[in-house]
Amino acid sequence: MTMHDRLSLNQATIKRADLSQALSATAAAGIPSIGLWREPVHDVGLSTACTMVADSGLRVSSLCRGGFFTSDDPGEQQRARDANLRAIDEIAQLAAAGAAGSAPVLVLVAGGLPEASTDLRGARERATTAVADLVDAAAAARVTLAIEPMHPMYAADRGVISSLRSALDIAEHFDAATVGVVVDAFHIWWDPDVYTQVARAGVQQRISSYQINDWITPLPADALLSRGLPGQGHIDLRALTRAVVDAGYGGDIEVEIFNADIWARPFDDVLRDILVATSAMTV
Amino acid sequence: MTMHDRLSLNQATIKRADLSQALSATAAAGIPSIGLWREPVHDVGLSTACTMVADSGLRVSSLCRGGFFTSDDPGEQQRARDANLRAIDEIAQLAAAGAAGSAPVLVLVAGGLPEASTDLRGARERATTAVADLVDAAAAARVTLAIEPMHPMYAADRGVISSLRSALDIAEHFDAATVGVVVDAFHIWWDPDVYTQVARAGVQQRISSYQINDWITPLPADALLSRGLPGQGHIDLRALTRAVVDAGYGGDIEVEIFNADIWARPFDDVLRDILVATSAMTV
Repeated sequence: MTMHDRLSLNQATIKRADLSQALSATAAAGIPSIGLWREPVHDVGLSTACTMVADSGLRVSSLCRGGFFTSDDPGEQQRARDANLRAIDEIAQLAAAGAAGSAPVLVLVAGGLPEASTDLRGARERATTAVADLVDAAAAARVTLAIEPMHPMYAADRGVISSLRSALDIAEHFDAATVGVVVDAFHIWWDPDVYTQVARAGVQQRISSYQINDWITPLPADALLSRGLPGQGHIDLRALTRAVVDAGYGGDIEVEIFNADIWARPFDDVLRDILVATSAMTV
Repeated sequence: MTMHDRLSLNQATIKRADLSQALSATAAAGIPSIGLWREPVHDVGLSTACTMVADSGLRVSSLCRGGFFTSDDPGEQQRARDANLRAIDEIAQLAAAGAAGSAPVLVLVAGGLPEASTDLRGARERATTAVADLVDAAAAARVTLAIEPMHPMYAADRGVISSLRSALDIAEHFDAATVGVVVDAFHIWWDPDVYTQVARAGVQQRISSYQINDWITPLPADALLSRGLPGQGHIDLRALTRAVVDAGYGGDIEVEIFNADIWARPFDDVLRDILVATSAMTV
């Protein structure tokens, strides 16, 4: 089938939109699913957000984001745990409000190193422990915690889990319905091991989310905003998508692009470009 | 011993210096070794450069850079091969002119993807073939080709070999005296596999160069210039240096920093800061 039947707009792609605008623009474009972010949900309140999602007729493909639990300060660790427990409850309710096929998936970004720290191994261990501490609550809520490996350029300041292999090494300690991984093209495309790890994730049924975008060059000044529309850059998205689908992933495919130029444009124009960029892709 | 006895200034750290200034500043600072770059050598001519190196009393720890051989165009491939053959001859002569303990090591950076290409695997295969095509010439000149894995953020536009494991996978097809690897802290510090691969490189006696610097945050606007002085960032240089030394590396340790702020400063000030930054490090 065409990818459009499984397309999801990750809300961060049109970051200036509030929840109402994001839902309307996505539905109007004929995109059947949306990946939500916590902040715009909080802006209207969870209960109202659930009603808006239900009224939109859209599926919910994920909630961004939990995680950020690598602090070495006990108080910070407790605050992170509390925030993640709230996020688990939020995605459980949002996915229940979404159309059939919605996915109660909470995306987890590990967080970076504490200030001035050089203890990368310690931060990775704390991230593993923090996932373990959320598993019971996630299972009780029937939510899947999806560990997102981040590109190694973010290892210091954003996400210490740097490869799909590392994410799976953590996830496989737990039930696959409760802990999976995010395959985000931007973060993992460079990895010589990526197809092996996508297949491994498939065997374990741990691909909980698939996000597409592209790697453009030269890198913009803000390395966080260096993503292009699918097809604009150097990622072989056809091969990666085929691998993810062959690995058994049957969920929605999110377009998630952080790019200041794209954020500056009218939402409808961006969605039209996304539909064109993905029109030739099949799943 | 203190690291200072094995310290080398990679010339790119004081990029505005010509060869004469770089040699003088390094010797004046009491740093016993220098890592050269081809462009400032070409500026004075190879023969003159050899005389200047001999007169300086410094060791030569490496020559940057060969490689850039991932083009899919046959004419470009031939030009890259010719340039690398010239570079092999250059480092053979420069190391012979340097003080005892100089290392005839040519640093190889693979190069990125051709414009608009998404064939990362193909580019990696071309890099492997290109190394193989240089091995006989390097062996004849008693030069070591040192494959430098680049940080994954450069996979598209600069270096498609993205990990120490990948560099070793190529190198181990050849004699260890002829093909080794560069361990550059900035490029590989994030890798969960790095200590395993440093040990593997040690067993094979393939660590041909060790370069130190640091990973600073936030990333500057030009991601190529995002290196700090040792100790300024998030890399555990003590642990990495211990691993490299324990793996049997006995050569010079280059400080290689690309950073616009450092380039703007007086050379002597930079070298003094490097000596301070490395004063507590032992090898």
